[in-house]
Amino acid sequence: MNAPASRWTRADIARLDHEDRLAHLRARFLVPEGVVYLDGNSLGCLPAGVEERIQRLMREEWGNDLIKSWNIHDWIDLPRRVGAKIARLIGAEDNEVVAADSTSVNLYKLLAAALKMRPDRRVILTEADNFPTDNYMMQGLSALVGGVEVRAIARDAITDAIDENVAVVSLTHVNYRTGQIYDMAGVTDAAHRAGALTIWDLSHSAGAVPVYLNEAAADFAVGCGYKFLNGGPGAPAYVFVASRHFDEAISPLWGWLGHAKPFDFSGDYAPGDGIDRFQCGTPALLSLVALDAALDAFDGVEIPALYGKAQRLGDLFLDLVDSELGNSDLEIACPRKADERGSQVSFTHPNAFEIVQALIDRDMIGDYRAPDIARFGLTPIYLRYSDIGRGVELLKDVMDQEAWRDPRYQTRGKVT
Amino acid sequence: MNAPASRWTRADIARLDHEDRLAHLRARFLVPEGVVYLDGNSLGCLPAGVEERIQRLMREEWGNDLIKSWNIHDWIDLPRRVGAKIARLIGAEDNEVVAADSTSVNLYKLLAAALKMRPDRRVILTEADNFPTDNYMMQGLSALVGGVEVRAIARDAITDAIDENVAVVSLTHVNYRTGQIYDMAGVTDAAHRAGALTIWDLSHSAGAVPVYLNEAAADFAVGCGYKFLNGGPGAPAYVFVASRHFDEAISPLWGWLGHAKPFDFSGDYAPGDGIDRFQCGTPALLSLVALDAALDAFDGVEIPALYGKAQRLGDLFLDLVDSELGNSDLEIACPRKADERGSQVSFTHPNAFEIVQALIDRDMIGDYRAPDIARFGLTPIYLRYSDIGRGVELLKDVMDQEAWRDPRYQTRGKVT
Repeated sequence: MNAPASRWTRADIARLDHEDRLAHLRARFLVPEGVVYLDGNSLGCLPAGVEERIQRLMREEWGNDLIKSWNIHDWIDLPRRVGAKIARLIGAEDNEVVAADSTSVNLYKLLAAALKMRPDRRVILTEADNFPTDNYMMQGLSALVGGVEVRAIARDAITDAIDENVAVVSLTHVNYRTGQIYDMAGVTDAAHRAGALTIWDLSHSAGAVPVYLNEAAADFAVGCGYKFLNGGPGAPAYVFVASRHFDEAISPLWGWLGHAKPFDFSGDYAPGDGIDRFQCGTPALLSLVALDAALDAFDGVEIPALYGKAQRLGDLFLDLVDSELGNSDLEIACPRKADERGSQVSFTHPNAFEIVQALIDRDMIGDYRAPDIARFGLTPIYLRYSDIGRGVELLKDVMDQEAWRDPRYQTRGKVT
Repeated sequence: MNAPASRWTRADIARLDHEDRLAHLRARFLVPEGVVYLDGNSLGCLPAGVEERIQRLMREEWGNDLIKSWNIHDWIDLPRRVGAKIARLIGAEDNEVVAADSTSVNLYKLLAAALKMRPDRRVILTEADNFPTDNYMMQGLSALVGGVEVRAIARDAITDAIDENVAVVSLTHVNYRTGQIYDMAGVTDAAHRAGALTIWDLSHSAGAVPVYLNEAAADFAVGCGYKFLNGGPGAPAYVFVASRHFDEAISPLWGWLGHAKPFDFSGDYAPGDGIDRFQCGTPALLSLVALDAALDAFDGVEIPALYGKAQRLGDLFLDLVDSELGNSDLEIACPRKADERGSQVSFTHPNAFEIVQALIDRDMIGDYRAPDIARFGLTPIYLRYSDIGRGVELLKDVMDQEAWRDPRYQTRGKVT
């Protein structure tokens, strides 16, 4: 990297926080003191209202009202109510989204549904550098049903590769390593012109990057509840089905909560209406209630405003790296242009793993993604510009002093 | 029913509680005051230690240590640790069970694995009166892969119907309506002699009825975490795979946590060792931690002793119904013989729905199962004999006064 003269002083950065119209939103979260937390795209911080809500769930609902809670506390509709809260964040209608299962399982439902809707086409098209679990689920489905090809190719070749054999194009909106954003409307349009369907994984965008599913005419989407949605570790995921596909799209996982009349306990499956049929078994209520409460942190918040801040946080990070760390071996791995970048920055370095370990030891939390990426999530709803300033100071210390060479950080193979 | 002379006085019943060597276990749960809770086979009561454990998870682990908790609080191994706790209750080895997903999703994994292991056989054999979601999952799998027949027949015909076309026999150990118990070893033996595999759904037995998976040479099993295991609403379910099948059994849901090296983020799926490959996406941690804490209520408890109490609770219930309600239209729908009966009693009545509603209104919680069953779960770890006495008194009131005719109870279609 080149090293231009530093443009930012600490006072400059403090002023950005002072002038930040979204600064008050940080109080909606319990962010640990003294920690620069740049890993909200792995696990979002604890929203302030969640603990109380979970206590109430446990003591009053589970503990006291027990099974009656399905009715009197309306547990039975919670997957739809949570879905509706998420819908607002991703450009969908309330009735097009339901919270259920994990992202992986939900992707499987949609892949199978899409293949059934395009019986003459047997290719699932994806990016080779897609989030691995997404591609594993495709491979597993292909191994099960036979005759389905998972075509995993380079990102730049996707649009041109959508041909008459492609049933469904399944992509992650924001790449988990580089932060690159797909042109959702453009790819969807290309898919539709070729007669294919689309599935968008919103795990690394929803809650921080604007998503306009219906404006893009997207067919299907899934996403994760525990990253920028802050729903807690392993929070339930969600499924979006465009309402025009409600009649035709059938989940392969015919669980009882997706049945038209689950409490008739009839012997044969009859799919529920619309998005309801994409539920499966009984939802993990504790986790679902945490997600429900967590989503209230978005009350009155507009995602484009959050994303504007995320872009400025990222620009600041990259500017500071340019000016302070221009002589290091860190290479910027995310787009320079803010509007091509999700809510993260990332860098390559042969010792990215050890660098991230050294930073964690200094209370700057990012994460390593194999083989050589150091990734820093920029959650605009609770981060301050001064967190970025402090973070780059810590990064500079680690790089200047080669602190990452410490043998303690040579522990590859563990979770980060 | 006939009406023999009453054998039980309240004093007799009080003495049973006084002499009950398991009576102290009730203190391990927060059972609501004044409620006769006979629905632990739908949703178990809140164990005493769960609230504190969840608070710690939220405040210290999620809230403070955030993503580092996967390592420092060992979240990553929790599905296996919970699995090992369950293994002890179902006659399995610690390394043969993992907690994951819902019962429905886990059953799907095993059905697909079994079909792959018996490629020349295309029949899934089950009971027509099996728990509906189990049979729905079979139907969904059949619809997806094609060429697979779900043969759902009468219970008594199962053993004779296991022929050379049957890949897998999938049954629920204790029937959710009648409480009838399958002879797990006998059916498994018949299946094996015919070259078929077995899957046992333990949802209505584990935690109350002895299960000896390995003694019975069972191949596969699934079960629910929120009934007799008391893990909380929608608690994660579990999967058992006999260790002799570890190499051959492959889940169709190739999620990243089932990968041999999930944090390598490699492009191709490679199944993890043994039971690990039956994990899929990121587990719902709040719900999983609640289940983990809940299982501690079984510390030092032997399931055969619990089941002995469950049988005595059931015998008492049926005796009291005979003597007090012999002239009612209630018909006993569960086996009279205690050792043929799971941890529940059930009755048929044309107005079973309304009867259950009237009882709920009187703080006796059981549940209705379509079309005409009133079902009462007998959770031996926290119920008292006096709960049964009080319960039958309330049932007698409702029947004698025909309280179920009240228009308020004519609300079929809602969850019970």
